[in-house]
Amino acid sequence: MDCREYTKKRNLIYKGRILDLYNDEVELADGSEAMREYVRHSGGSSVIAVDEQDYVYLVEQFRYPYGEMLLEIPAGKLNEGESPYDCALRELKEEVGLSAHNIIDLGVIYPSPAYTDEPLHIYYAKDFKVGEYCLDEHELLNVKKVKFDKAVDMVCNNVIKDAKTVTAILKVVLMRTRASNQ
Amino acid sequence: MDCREYTKKRNLIYKGRILDLYNDEVELADGSEAMREYVRHSGGSSVIAVDEQDYVYLVEQFRYPYGEMLLEIPAGKLNEGESPYDCALRELKEEVGLSAHNIIDLGVIYPSPAYTDEPLHIYYAKDFKVGEYCLDEHELLNVKKVKFDKAVDMVCNNVIKDAKTVTAILKVVLMRTRASNQ
Repeated sequence: MDCREYTKKRNLIYKGRILDLYNDEVELADGSEAMREYVRHSGGSSVIAVDEQDYVYLVEQFRYPYGEMLLEIPAGKLNEGESPYDCALRELKEEVGLSAHNIIDLGVIYPSPAYTDEPLHIYYAKDFKVGEYCLDEHELLNVKKVKFDKAVDMVCNNVIKDAKTVTAILKVVLMRTRASNQ
Repeated sequence: MDCREYTKKRNLIYKGRILDLYNDEVELADGSEAMREYVRHSGGSSVIAVDEQDYVYLVEQFRYPYGEMLLEIPAGKLNEGESPYDCALRELKEEVGLSAHNIIDLGVIYPSPAYTDEPLHIYYAKDFKVGEYCLDEHELLNVKKVKFDKAVDMVCNNVIKDAKTVTAILKVVLMRTRASNQ
């Protein structure tokens, strides 16, 4: 069945700094009409970095919408004209001080497709140099190095809840399982 | 380091049907002030159902923000006063026609913690009865049964991009790997 929806009228509700909000009039595949409320976002990029001692680099930061400190892999919003790959390298350097040349593409996730258009890219860094990190002004976070196996347990115990971080850790688990079965 | 942020003034920008948008004035841990744009959402619940022949039930639907057909596990928004558990059972019945009594809690994910407060609950159904599904009015979707191993490949190949679906599939892979290693 074709379930496409067609824009009849695009309505910008709010133009913000990190997101815009729309409430569009759309025509559904059955000919009926509906409204679609959604966020437009430039997209994000993130990177799971695992060193030779099998430590994964996480950042702990306060996330205002939840009112909680969360553990996440380094990530950020794409700058205008910036590729997801370059954004991942930049955030890796800024947030945890790691310089990488080659990172592996783990794909993109769609965080909550009912109401946001954000593509969230995920990369995997295995080969990097440790240096100083350099946060944006007023960006407050704690860098935490956690044994990879412990991070997997934290996903299972739901201590780690952030979707990109859960996905990144579990994709690396799967890659390792498949590699060891070959 | 304490990185808490305190609400100085809550500003409702838009009150919608599926989400509200806020732009709050906050005080950061270093004493400076900032604005926080974010969506408030009642939360969602989803369920990965895998039958005795190892088929997983997916729904294919058009997601307007991306302009794409996506493959996802059955899911929906919590009704007022509804528990995540009951919401998962309801969506499983409505979207794919499956009746379950016991579902396993796979935890909660936070889809995009910079700008939404949505908690997205994930459950796992192994024991269910197959019946008729009954969609909400104007809810258009296709039910697809996919072999679990194929669904895992679709996560690896990035054919499946939806965050809750990726998480659910990879958590089931991990549960199976751990069970078979015991």
